[in-house]
Amino acid sequence: MCELLGMSANVPTDLCFSFTGLLHRGGGTGPHRDGWGVVFYEGKGIRAFRDSAPSVESEIAKLVSQFPMKSCIAISHIREANVGVVSLENTHPFVRELWGQNWTFAHNGQLANVDDLPLGEFTPVGTTDSERAFCWLLAKIKYRFGDPDTIAEDRVNYWRQLKRWCDHLKDMGVTNLLFSEGRYLYAYCSTKLTWITRRAPFGEAQLSDAEMTVDFGEHTTCNDVVTVIATKPLTNNESWTQMEPGEFIVFDQGEVAFSLS
Amino acid sequence: MCELLGMSANVPTDLCFSFTGLLHRGGGTGPHRDGWGVVFYEGKGIRAFRDSAPSVESEIAKLVSQFPMKSCIAISHIREANVGVVSLENTHPFVRELWGQNWTFAHNGQLANVDDLPLGEFTPVGTTDSERAFCWLLAKIKYRFGDPDTIAEDRVNYWRQLKRWCDHLKDMGVTNLLFSEGRYLYAYCSTKLTWITRRAPFGEAQLSDAEMTVDFGEHTTCNDVVTVIATKPLTNNESWTQMEPGEFIVFDQGEVAFSLS
Repeated sequence: MCELLGMSANVPTDLCFSFTGLLHRGGGTGPHRDGWGVVFYEGKGIRAFRDSAPSVESEIAKLVSQFPMKSCIAISHIREANVGVVSLENTHPFVRELWGQNWTFAHNGQLANVDDLPLGEFTPVGTTDSERAFCWLLAKIKYRFGDPDTIAEDRVNYWRQLKRWCDHLKDMGVTNLLFSEGRYLYAYCSTKLTWITRRAPFGEAQLSDAEMTVDFGEHTTCNDVVTVIATKPLTNNESWTQMEPGEFIVFDQGEVAFSLS
Repeated sequence: MCELLGMSANVPTDLCFSFTGLLHRGGGTGPHRDGWGVVFYEGKGIRAFRDSAPSVESEIAKLVSQFPMKSCIAISHIREANVGVVSLENTHPFVRELWGQNWTFAHNGQLANVDDLPLGEFTPVGTTDSERAFCWLLAKIKYRFGDPDTIAEDRVNYWRQLKRWCDHLKDMGVTNLLFSEGRYLYAYCSTKLTWITRRAPFGEAQLSDAEMTVDFGEHTTCNDVVTVIATKPLTNNESWTQMEPGEFIVFDQGEVAFSLS
């Protein structure tokens, strides 16, 4: 299986601390040696870094963990391959353009019978079940809603529909998901996904997977709201909220905008 | 204006030397301070690095210039903005999926009336004339040829058609282009583009923009063939071939597979 990491914030925030925790699980404290990737949104643009080497040994991962790239939405993934060989094109997160937006998708789990999913015009580049599920989801969104204006007219209806499509994937196998179109961060839990929102008064946090402590009070203002979502809690001195199987949460600028179980 | 850099090779080759020369023009020896990007193909996958900061000051650019990422096709671009603000989504090269292939596109020049170009289902994320031209070109390719098998049946016919579409863009303004779908590297010259093929016996090369010399004989085998394409020659002790206005060259594994003026 794989591990997921996501961030939603109301001010551009770096992911260095959480990413350091995650990358130690990529061949260090965890078995996820088959590549890693991270996407940072900056405006409508993205920075994507990925490598088919284990994150704990990756020069690029070291740069990402040390160089503060600030973003309001980030999605990361470390991989332990089950479907699809170890290669760059099979490395999450996957990115596709739809309606002039960069959509990003990362999956932890394994799906049966993905070949049955109709994909519309979205063709997978690699051979993972995950990228195929992403293409299917994009095609569903495109053909059901047509354009972003239709979605904006009734966003809650759209979010309910997203959850139903996630439920459909869950019926095919383990489906823990993080995805985004650059404004909202969508989290769907099938077996394990946990999250924490940090806001004033900020305290100190201690990584579970590396000897690293950060005092968020030194790096934030009193208005900052930052939510981090991960497969397992990344820190050992904070209280993380475990998502329920079938739970879908929409994060907007660090806050929960919508949730449905 | 901007500067382009491309590489086509028959063995995975790093771009460190050429990229070092290019990045010095991004705010150092050249005025191209408005961002930079590079795409490396690895199998069907890509690594993309981009930054809206000047390349000469960019931490990410430093990593790319020092850490040998080996690839048979790479495309890079440094930007001096004319159309579209300085932002990540306006930073070349642009990448889109078509037919399960990652297509990459970088442009040096400026096009008039790009809003008149029909784009089909490909929507620009940013606001550059270049990304719009890329979306138009992809739509043309998709609707004229339908799938990669049709192209493979008569590749020369396809290449002739690509050149006609590049000519159409050239009629709209300066159009120096590098693009690829991962196998072939396409170069189109409207005003300036130059290239060099290095093969055994390999010699020493001296960068024009930085004090750096490399002896390619130490890093290659006698079968290696590596072509580098750039806006202006990157070295001052080798003989580069200047492309003619309207000339279109297809590079395949370092060799010229097709050319048409």
